[in-house]
Amino acid sequence: MIGRLNHVAIAVRDIAAASEVYRSTLGAQVSAPEPLEEHGVTVVFITLPNTKIELLEPLGAESPIARFLEKNPDGGMHHICYEVDDIGAARDQLVNSGARVLGSGEPKIGAHGKPVLFLHPKDFNGTLIELEQA
Amino acid sequence: MIGRLNHVAIAVRDIAAASEVYRSTLGAQVSAPEPLEEHGVTVVFITLPNTKIELLEPLGAESPIARFLEKNPDGGMHHICYEVDDIGAARDQLVNSGARVLGSGEPKIGAHGKPVLFLHPKDFNGTLIELEQA
Repeated sequence: MIGRLNHVAIAVRDIAAASEVYRSTLGAQVSAPEPLEEHGVTVVFITLPNTKIELLEPLGAESPIARFLEKNPDGGMHHICYEVDDIGAARDQLVNSGARVLGSGEPKIGAHGKPVLFLHPKDFNGTLIELEQA
Repeated sequence: MIGRLNHVAIAVRDIAAASEVYRSTLGAQVSAPEPLEEHGVTVVFITLPNTKIELLEPLGAESPIARFLEKNPDGGMHHICYEVDDIGAARDQLVNSGARVLGSGEPKIGAHGKPVLFLHPKDFNGTLIELEQA
């Protein structure tokens, strides 16, 4: 079912400082910060030859990464995103296998403008998994 | 400096159960478990079209992932590995920029038989980074 690794998301407190670490210290190609108010994060894309890293900084009072940063004040890997061909079929197959999909179970439009779902970390080795229809 | 994302490593308590989640629930291609006594882990490789995921289960009393699993009993993302062309040059550049390399600072032979280094999570947004000479 899962295809390419679309991205690894790293939650950070200070996206300017984190961007500078990737740009200067690690010598990577780093985009300008982009506020995504409807997702409650400011995002930066780090382009690697085979995939990308996303840095996420909380935006607004209801940011979905605020609690993660309370528990992990230095920041850390927040989720991993795998691509699927058909997110509805993937959701049905997962639910039939007993895995929990977060929220209503209906795909939402994610930060890349494509349908996404998040899976319950307790069912996936403590890892928050995002599925994105490629 | 950094190139491809070589792998994301996920620490798990039960590598057979975790392998089954990736094989059956997520429909991925999963290798047989391989004990790496000198690294203190049993490893499984999950092959994705553009990179790989490694599942790590502690092996032996001195496993480097034992403490992580005490803190994260469900398991979780443990480190991310980026490829570099020349690990000695990468190390020198990192040290000159003030970043901390774990251990002696000398590259060791990693789980893939190639020279690796680990970088201090406090200097990299709370993320444990492995560099592997590609």
